[in-house]
Amino acid sequence: MKAATDHPVQELIAARWSPYSFAARAVAAEDLRSLFEAARWAPSSYNEQPWRYIVARQEQTADFQRLLSCLIDLNQVWAKAAPVLALGIARLRFSHNEQPNRAAIHDLGLANGYLVLEATARGLAVHQMIGILPDKAREIYEIPEGYEPMVGLAIGYTGDPQALPEELAKRDLLRRPRKPLRDFVFDGKWGSISDFVR
Amino acid sequence: MKAATDHPVQELIAARWSPYSFAARAVAAEDLRSLFEAARWAPSSYNEQPWRYIVARQEQTADFQRLLSCLIDLNQVWAKAAPVLALGIARLRFSHNEQPNRAAIHDLGLANGYLVLEATARGLAVHQMIGILPDKAREIYEIPEGYEPMVGLAIGYTGDPQALPEELAKRDLLRRPRKPLRDFVFDGKWGSISDFVR
Repeated sequence: MKAATDHPVQELIAARWSPYSFAARAVAAEDLRSLFEAARWAPSSYNEQPWRYIVARQEQTADFQRLLSCLIDLNQVWAKAAPVLALGIARLRFSHNEQPNRAAIHDLGLANGYLVLEATARGLAVHQMIGILPDKAREIYEIPEGYEPMVGLAIGYTGDPQALPEELAKRDLLRRPRKPLRDFVFDGKWGSISDFVR
Repeated sequence: MKAATDHPVQELIAARWSPYSFAARAVAAEDLRSLFEAARWAPSSYNEQPWRYIVARQEQTADFQRLLSCLIDLNQVWAKAAPVLALGIARLRFSHNEQPNRAAIHDLGLANGYLVLEATARGLAVHQMIGILPDKAREIYEIPEGYEPMVGLAIGYTGDPQALPEELAKRDLLRRPRKPLRDFVFDGKWGSISDFVR
């Protein structure tokens, strides 16, 4: 089901959706490559490319369980069914001078956004989670100082919501609404609605 | 010129590019609406939609100058030619409980990424800048506490790089390279290259 947009946007953006249910169907390696390739071409401040990913596929049983254990329990409940899990990690300083990169997390988010759209184009879906255990991830994967584990990504084909606990099945069918443009597009002063969205 | 991707990605992702040169051509209000509509449909943690924008078009002379003054000098040099400037601002706490939203800046980046792709699809280009003066923006626009001005966005049609100072003209023609996937897609341990990108 496509989002009910107020103004036309690209099909992929309207079609994107974060499911809780995933089908028991593996993701081809070539699709995975294209997902991370899409992230790779995101813009970033000073072309730093501050994004890093740790990825585990369900068939790598031990690795998958380790990655799953880096999610909060509430997310493990449904994310365990995703054929692919990933962690998105940001390098917090610039490589060229080791000064703080104020854009690092912003740019990781942007790269994740392109990964998600590439997935959508391939009939896949991605559900991102801020509910991860960064310190646990740091320990398990020996993530060096200066890198911040930020988000989990559950990647796969959408499944049957009826396989989910009832509460999640209900949420899975919901398309969450959005604020109207006038609530967040301002002009000369904070809260003053831009003329083109009035 | 499309990016030379190692693996196939969506046309829009490969075509996206951050120019320094902008043509003296206005952006239609309906295109602007669709750009912010694309941002609107980005996913966000708890559907918080932490993104806010302040937008000024060149024909709004005073407003445009005020927004331009929130960019660092180095960015003003070229961004002054863009027909539209915007600031991307993140709400740092969740609205439902005023607790810190760890995903706020990540989600703003993601929304900006969709705005940029929507622009690309419409023949427009966006150059994002981390080089802004957040405190100045806060003062000029009376941005409330708890909101963080993060990035500038120059929006318009690409122009003739020869109109730029020489150094920028050179940079404008460059397509910046990317790290290979094996440098940032890991599996069981930090730095261990995922089998599907080996």
